[in-house]
Amino acid sequence: MKVGKSELEEVSKKIKPYIHRTPVLTSGLINEIAEADLFFKCENFQKMGAFKMRGATNAILNLTEEQKNKGVVTHSSGNFAQALSLAAKSLGVPAYIVMPDSAPAVKKAAVRSYGGIITECPATIKDREETAAMIQKNTGATFIHPSNDMDVILGQGTAAMELLEDKPELNFIFTPVGGGGLIAGTALAAKHFGHNCTCIGAEPEEADDAWRSLKSGKIETNQTVNTIADGLKTQLGDKNFPFIKEHVQEIIRVSEAEIKEALRIIWERMKIIVEPSSAVALAAVIKEKERFKHKKIGIIISGGNVDLENLPF
Amino acid sequence: MKVGKSELEEVSKKIKPYIHRTPVLTSGLINEIAEADLFFKCENFQKMGAFKMRGATNAILNLTEEQKNKGVVTHSSGNFAQALSLAAKSLGVPAYIVMPDSAPAVKKAAVRSYGGIITECPATIKDREETAAMIQKNTGATFIHPSNDMDVILGQGTAAMELLEDKPELNFIFTPVGGGGLIAGTALAAKHFGHNCTCIGAEPEEADDAWRSLKSGKIETNQTVNTIADGLKTQLGDKNFPFIKEHVQEIIRVSEAEIKEALRIIWERMKIIVEPSSAVALAAVIKEKERFKHKKIGIIISGGNVDLENLPF
Repeated sequence: MKVGKSELEEVSKKIKPYIHRTPVLTSGLINEIAEADLFFKCENFQKMGAFKMRGATNAILNLTEEQKNKGVVTHSSGNFAQALSLAAKSLGVPAYIVMPDSAPAVKKAAVRSYGGIITECPATIKDREETAAMIQKNTGATFIHPSNDMDVILGQGTAAMELLEDKPELNFIFTPVGGGGLIAGTALAAKHFGHNCTCIGAEPEEADDAWRSLKSGKIETNQTVNTIADGLKTQLGDKNFPFIKEHVQEIIRVSEAEIKEALRIIWERMKIIVEPSSAVALAAVIKEKERFKHKKIGIIISGGNVDLENLPF
Repeated sequence: MKVGKSELEEVSKKIKPYIHRTPVLTSGLINEIAEADLFFKCENFQKMGAFKMRGATNAILNLTEEQKNKGVVTHSSGNFAQALSLAAKSLGVPAYIVMPDSAPAVKKAAVRSYGGIITECPATIKDREETAAMIQKNTGATFIHPSNDMDVILGQGTAAMELLEDKPELNFIFTPVGGGGLIAGTALAAKHFGHNCTCIGAEPEEADDAWRSLKSGKIETNQTVNTIADGLKTQLGDKNFPFIKEHVQEIIRVSEAEIKEALRIIWERMKIIVEPSSAVALAAVIKEKERFKHKKIGIIISGGNVDLENLPF
């Protein structure tokens, strides 16, 4: 499958009626802290509260009518579950969602409110995949992976496209790295729509599969997932890793303390609610600020769905 | 002192270089809950995080050079302390701030970061006033009341002016009621810049001095201040009450549970951080939603300074 400028443009046009064009915010106070010019692409204000709405919408729009009738199925620790449910609902398609029983209550409730049909399972990759396969077999639904799917990758890339449309002069775009869909799409967008714009990933030390994969040149698995950035516990996939390998300059790892500090800075200074996963990118900029001094840096704020009963403050 | 359209316009022009023009946000999900069209004037994104920046700036700009040299003094439970400190700092004026020793740590730290010189005192009106009077005597600083001051009232009114410039078709503007400065200024702005726009106040049942004052026709005092809306514990004053009496149609009281629920709705649906005091206005709209169905309603989001260690969730 060819994936260049025109494919991204086509996806952007196709999903436009179903998503919000999110604002790009700045903060003088955070610029002072980072000693750089930061531009936050606020996907926390996206429909259902995360960038995942983009990829989910694109994936469903690309199904045949027969496939749409039978529905879609996925497994997700949270945001993609909501995204697929809401995208499916607005397109009149049934959505079967496999969720780990440990997922935050607020995320399960949101999936239900968007009309998703939840099946819970133990929180291992193996259990999730088996449960999804069973549903697929029973219903004929099409499986849509949250991050390792070309339609999803292209959909996620549209956030960075919009950001570069608003701020074409960016030197860097930082994204958090979980399953790899967002960063793969962002790297493609940076290549095709930026002017020498470099894509950099940010990852928790506690879930550093992408950092190790980029080092070894092959997909590595997470050895721990003991991080508050619960959207970033997932593994890279064979569809997105090639793009990351080719177009992402580096992954910067940050500690849990650095994530919490960046999260507090965003909440207190910008007065917006973002997920811990979103703070990972700012944490990386601040950690390496000597290198990025006075640069123009885009940051993809991935989402804003938090469980208010379980905040890390 | 004459206070009409031209006075408000003059104040708005004067303070413009020192404040942010804050955005007006909407939420389809909250409109569904309220069954009305709501427009949130987001003063949580104002400099120092609250509308109080407007009044403080105007009050200092109206001092003589000699007065500016000697500085300003106030007593405040929080936001006005920060506002006066920051406004004074940007105008090169010393700011002496009397704060109750029970004020949230995050607010004291913010006042210090803005250069305010803090004197702590017990959390009674009497103690605050005596401490401020002592500082005034020792330094020659000019006392600026957080809400019962005509320059402050006019400054606060500029938020509603901007809101009506963006949304001239509003039927109502709701504001929370604390010391009365915001609602007095808002009522004046609604009268002079709205087209049949009615100003309505919202108050916690636990601090309902304005509701009782409007009923009796004279200034009543709070009998309890047991509310999470800590910005609304203050008393109405003789300078703002006449405007409230003349131009505010009514005050709606809400319970603590209703405030918490509205706060949760704003945080979860809009992904913005607002203070409990700001949620009081939305709580009032939702409580009386049968009366305001399908109306266009402006809501002044008063501020976003919260202590992340002590959230009501």
